[in-house]
Amino acid sequence: MPERDFARWRACADAALSRALPDADRPPHRLHAAMRHAVLLGGKRMRPMLVYASGELLGATPASLDAPAAAVELIHAYSLVHDDLPCMDDDALRRGQPTVHVAFDEATAVLAGDALQARAYELLADAPVSDTTRVALLRVLAGAAGAAGMCGGQALDLDATGSGHAMSVQALKRLHALKTGALIRAAVRMGALCGDADPARLDALDRFADAMGLAFQVRDDILDIESDSATLGKTAGKDQAQAKATFPALIGMVASRCLLSDLAATMDAALSEFGERASALAALGRLAIERDR
Amino acid sequence: MPERDFARWRACADAALSRALPDADRPPHRLHAAMRHAVLLGGKRMRPMLVYASGELLGATPASLDAPAAAVELIHAYSLVHDDLPCMDDDALRRGQPTVHVAFDEATAVLAGDALQARAYELLADAPVSDTTRVALLRVLAGAAGAAGMCGGQALDLDATGSGHAMSVQALKRLHALKTGALIRAAVRMGALCGDADPARLDALDRFADAMGLAFQVRDDILDIESDSATLGKTAGKDQAQAKATFPALIGMVASRCLLSDLAATMDAALSEFGERASALAALGRLAIERDR
Repeated sequence: MPERDFARWRACADAALSRALPDADRPPHRLHAAMRHAVLLGGKRMRPMLVYASGELLGATPASLDAPAAAVELIHAYSLVHDDLPCMDDDALRRGQPTVHVAFDEATAVLAGDALQARAYELLADAPVSDTTRVALLRVLAGAAGAAGMCGGQALDLDATGSGHAMSVQALKRLHALKTGALIRAAVRMGALCGDADPARLDALDRFADAMGLAFQVRDDILDIESDSATLGKTAGKDQAQAKATFPALIGMVASRCLLSDLAATMDAALSEFGERASALAALGRLAIERDR
Repeated sequence: MPERDFARWRACADAALSRALPDADRPPHRLHAAMRHAVLLGGKRMRPMLVYASGELLGATPASLDAPAAAVELIHAYSLVHDDLPCMDDDALRRGQPTVHVAFDEATAVLAGDALQARAYELLADAPVSDTTRVALLRVLAGAAGAAGMCGGQALDLDATGSGHAMSVQALKRLHALKTGALIRAAVRMGALCGDADPARLDALDRFADAMGLAFQVRDDILDIESDSATLGKTAGKDQAQAKATFPALIGMVASRCLLSDLAATMDAALSEFGERASALAALGRLAIERDR
């Protein structure tokens, strides 16, 4: 019953996140309230669930997984706050709520994002694991968040959106491998690092995560076309309005669905060596492909 | 001859920073160029020099200090990039150069700042010190950068600037203890952690750093009134134009100069137990009080 695991992991992640964030009744109130707004009002907690799933698969103790689970979600949440800014995607709706710069103001949104990023690393420095594991977690998360990961992918996205040139499928895959994929890979890897991770297993988990990261984005592109803002909890139809390079735009809807099937097969193959024990992780992979929002 | 130490430390810091930043001839080019612009075009390197000075005072090997010296400057540089954004201080000039959002664009400035922050922690995770020291450095820097440090101080500054209420001297000191002081304290402490740091010495260095952080800000407030943009390398007279709370505005210019003298005495007293060996660190403290820009 993966759904039971999902509910348990979501509860653990939500509790860890709430503990990790400063109280809104302590100054600076507005900053703290904005940080909590950015993180606690919704979110699928997919990245934390990946930490728990891969960690439990490799025998990590549940208590050791709270810090990396919360840390990766803090990085994800900060990136959304900055991504939604008027100078970036200029979005007013996120997770069915007003975005941080709308609910507060732009300066507070910049600062709240910055403070969330710092908090993520601070959490890992205090995680109840060995110093060697703490350093390994910090290296993985900071590498995935920076110029060679998420920020680099967002920069490629900016370049592409502004250039007016058609993008190749290869370049679009590369963009998403950084923008979305790097953090998903980091989530899976951090869970594994808290458990019994040998190189062969880490390699199999990387292959799973890379396929899942790409599948997540292909599904996102399809949903932007097929769904509506109320279901998504964010503005639908934005990709086309902004003339963004998407998989449906580049290869069509039919080929995009075929790509999703191929990625599902890649995910299954990567997890095959773990057998039945990987069923929760496999179910998270399917969720990336079948989700409605 | 502290000037000879300063020149050596600046050269070490500049070299470490250049190595730490991604090449501008690799994609995403614009992001990488913006990161290098933000860090490499000028800057006094005061925080890196504090790392080297306190580290060498406590017997740290010079090679171990490059990573924390570069990391604290990356955090400082990212905070300036975000601080200069139109939604924050809206400044076009920094270190005598166009600010990042002017030289590039706002979205790139947000991302470059974000990526610089991540890079700072990644550097510390790879520092040539023990894992235990790496974790201690990471904890200090992330704590100083976040909501309980620099970001919190900037949020207090936003609140004060917007409120129209007069601020107490106590509240202004508290604001600067976070906004400027936290990172200066972190710089001194990180150097010490790479050497032979016992609690009594750390305490003395904290007292030095706290006085220096406040002195640095008092001097900044005075320079904003007395200097010009060409000398400062940033826009002069902005505090008054934005009706910011400053020490000269709250207690007058004479009392501000007295406060600087008191802080100089506090710095000397804090370093007295180290004797002549602390002369370079003491000289850095005096620089905070006597500088022209």
